[in-house]
Amino acid sequence: MAKPKKTPRPRAETPKGFRDYFGAEVAGRNAMLAQIAEVYHRYGFDALESSAVETVEALGKFLPDVDRPNAGVFAWQEADDEKWLALRYDLTAPLARVFAQHRNDLATPYRRYAMGPVWRNEKPGPGRFRQFYQCDADTVGTASMAADAEICAMLADCLEVVGIPRGDYVIRINNRKVLNGVLESMGLTDDAQRADVMRTIDKFDKVGEEGVRQLLGKGRLDASGAYIDGVGLAPEQADPVIAFLTSRAGDAATTLANLRTAVGDSATGAAGVDELQSIADLLTAQGYGPDRIVIDPSVVRGLGYYTGPVFEAELTFEITDEKGRPRQFGSVAGGGRYDDLVKRFTGQEVPATGISIGVDRLLAALRAKGRIGGTEAGPVLITVMDRDRMGDYQAMVAELRGAGIRAEVYLGNPKNFGNQLKYADKRDCPLAVIEGSDEKDRGVVIIKDLALGKKLAADIASNEEWKEQPAQVEIARNRLAEVVTRYIGETEKNLFEIAG
Amino acid sequence: MAKPKKTPRPRAETPKGFRDYFGAEVAGRNAMLAQIAEVYHRYGFDALESSAVETVEALGKFLPDVDRPNAGVFAWQEADDEKWLALRYDLTAPLARVFAQHRNDLATPYRRYAMGPVWRNEKPGPGRFRQFYQCDADTVGTASMAADAEICAMLADCLEVVGIPRGDYVIRINNRKVLNGVLESMGLTDDAQRADVMRTIDKFDKVGEEGVRQLLGKGRLDASGAYIDGVGLAPEQADPVIAFLTSRAGDAATTLANLRTAVGDSATGAAGVDELQSIADLLTAQGYGPDRIVIDPSVVRGLGYYTGPVFEAELTFEITDEKGRPRQFGSVAGGGRYDDLVKRFTGQEVPATGISIGVDRLLAALRAKGRIGGTEAGPVLITVMDRDRMGDYQAMVAELRGAGIRAEVYLGNPKNFGNQLKYADKRDCPLAVIEGSDEKDRGVVIIKDLALGKKLAADIASNEEWKEQPAQVEIARNRLAEVVTRYIGETEKNLFEIAG
Repeated sequence: MAKPKKTPRPRAETPKGFRDYFGAEVAGRNAMLAQIAEVYHRYGFDALESSAVETVEALGKFLPDVDRPNAGVFAWQEADDEKWLALRYDLTAPLARVFAQHRNDLATPYRRYAMGPVWRNEKPGPGRFRQFYQCDADTVGTASMAADAEICAMLADCLEVVGIPRGDYVIRINNRKVLNGVLESMGLTDDAQRADVMRTIDKFDKVGEEGVRQLLGKGRLDASGAYIDGVGLAPEQADPVIAFLTSRAGDAATTLANLRTAVGDSATGAAGVDELQSIADLLTAQGYGPDRIVIDPSVVRGLGYYTGPVFEAELTFEITDEKGRPRQFGSVAGGGRYDDLVKRFTGQEVPATGISIGVDRLLAALRAKGRIGGTEAGPVLITVMDRDRMGDYQAMVAELRGAGIRAEVYLGNPKNFGNQLKYADKRDCPLAVIEGSDEKDRGVVIIKDLALGKKLAADIASNEEWKEQPAQVEIARNRLAEVVTRYIGETEKNLFEIAG
Repeated sequence: MAKPKKTPRPRAETPKGFRDYFGAEVAGRNAMLAQIAEVYHRYGFDALESSAVETVEALGKFLPDVDRPNAGVFAWQEADDEKWLALRYDLTAPLARVFAQHRNDLATPYRRYAMGPVWRNEKPGPGRFRQFYQCDADTVGTASMAADAEICAMLADCLEVVGIPRGDYVIRINNRKVLNGVLESMGLTDDAQRADVMRTIDKFDKVGEEGVRQLLGKGRLDASGAYIDGVGLAPEQADPVIAFLTSRAGDAATTLANLRTAVGDSATGAAGVDELQSIADLLTAQGYGPDRIVIDPSVVRGLGYYTGPVFEAELTFEITDEKGRPRQFGSVAGGGRYDDLVKRFTGQEVPATGISIGVDRLLAALRAKGRIGGTEAGPVLITVMDRDRMGDYQAMVAELRGAGIRAEVYLGNPKNFGNQLKYADKRDCPLAVIEGSDEKDRGVVIIKDLALGKKLAADIASNEEWKEQPAQVEIARNRLAEVVTRYIGETEKNLFEIAG
């Protein structure tokens, strides 16, 4: 108690809002990224890996998420030239910088894909982290709607490749110009009022048609009992907005006809409808029908950020949330056309369009549906019965690894054999190999089927019975690699039959 | 000229010391990481992906690079609780934090691998960047030399798997305890003097035996003409150090015997030699001989950081540097045993050992030897002859992609056909597909062999000849996917034979 006080030990914890990923989680994400990269690559997109760090100047402030306009970045100042650097908050801003910097060397239109972590300096929440993965594909340098159509088709392919079957997802397409046309036809020219209307439209998902009507008019009493002031439009002025938001029909042709009505005589609006028409036609030509991709003017997320078509991929199945309630899984990818990112650097308008797949959300969806997950198969464990014969065990493990089998020698303190089996259990080892001095003398090894052992231990009541049915076989030492390889490779596993 | 001055445009450039990686570079690195991950996994190591950001407190200051003790981190302060956060500078410090944080859930010994970028806030140089990849494997929680031997065997496997054949690399093993034994047997107890001797030993690579003798004694005139003061030992005191550094013999047994002499009656030294003996025996048992892994006491890099065995993998072939001079490629991986990283957090000593592979250096080595590199194969390009028939071209590209072929429709302005071919050239497209209205009417498409076209253009002198030997064939439209698939799949490519 009279000891001198030392510097306190550092706390072993991730910073707030960050987390670690282990084993199967890492492998699962990497496998998904590789699957998506393969689709992107097949569509002609080239990989790009820009640095995680950018100058704040180059990064600008282009966060697409209108819900959190104050979302910040992690930034610091260089010691020598006092420049501010920051971690990238998405993969689009770096793409704009890369394209502006290397535009003379890049074949244009430039199709690129990028995948990696991005960082947001914002308040973390349940399931919301300050570092997460994005997985983007963009085409820079073409105004052709064929680029937008292609991106949507590619997104559908990606979802199916990672394990979301057709029918369990839908990709919805809307167009910012159509909405602009609606606002124009309403005679709204005041920017502030337009912004108010935009914000109201963003609430359509939550408050529905009647809610939007109230919010565009006098106002609305929300669920919490608070009264939200409205934009103050006349009731008939809300009609074009509602017509726009509810224009989706059973087929693209009718939806597009409804939209043409909604935009009235606005040239911008007509251009937007033409763009949607063009995308719909090109998708039909490629064989992507409304079972995969639909024109849906109720998609309003991100409309403020994008300048033309807007895409959103939604999973349509229900999952059970942490409180046991069923709910729609919702959005897993989004994107659209943006024409002003590169202009910041060069002064030239460069049209671009792209998508971002939320890989972590997609993994969560697959996990919720039980389509991926659980733990990885552990290694075959060579137990250590005699610590002086470590060389023998190393020779065994080298044989197994040479045969392509995941295997290891127990490297903890071998004294307590029970600890070795506990370790094997924790690692989910399928088999344990045992060679004591008696086995060594007789030129044999024992192979223990740990999965079967667990099952037997659960089934068998008495300890006596358990001893009589050990889930293990004895084989000649020189058959080790052969028997283990066959066991690991078989789907129906019967160690006894394999051992013969 | 009288225009009002605007805010200057942001500069499109990476921050100093950072760079972008394109196409084949990204794909090549990812392929290498996947190959190494497969070996690590087969050895029983589990993936870990910790966050890029750590608290400065957890990170501590454990930079292994003794040459640059002032090497810094990129750090910033949190707005709310004023905690300092930083980007990780290696993958070992985060491992220590992760192990301390999750030790009750992790099976121990914990074998983990990790791969990803790390960041160093230091002066960049040619080929030295402030963000680079590391690719580590460590075993935490065992003092057994079997863990060290296994790591060395695994490192050899990794090098061979990524394309460094046996004979082109060597893994050298040394031991810090042996050096401590040497210092002990010299009667050096003063910490400052020991540190001076350590620093001198670190220069052995550069100055050789005679240089080390001078620096341990009175001093030395270096190449630049400056006089470097020596440590001031008596000439005979340098003998054990030199004996240690030059103890490597033709076989491990003789090397170990030499080391036993060098450490005299130091118990620490004897323990170190025993450890090396044990590693050598275990490697022999696994079949890893001196053609792959050797005991080499001249490996001194990192001796100050590690507490027991130290490993270094060196490529033994010569490459030509940027000035055309031949030079040894040198080190591509290193590691060793360290026992105090986790103790910082928990107070308990947790033995650990591991390696870090310098993936970027390894890629550079393979590129220098011409074993990887060049550009990726570009996509098959569907050219656009008639912009109103974009749907037809999209249908073609969908067919090719459906057959697993990398393909795209030209999305730039199609007016100038020459631009489409220039684009194909820049992308390294193997084939171009052409369907004008004439072809459309006749139900055919033209396939142009762009590689052959280039070759012919180079071979054929006159323009006339060139026109008569266009490297293209006409096939029925419905044979498109079949012919392209066969062409891409064949090693001997003859489009004319395939088209039949």
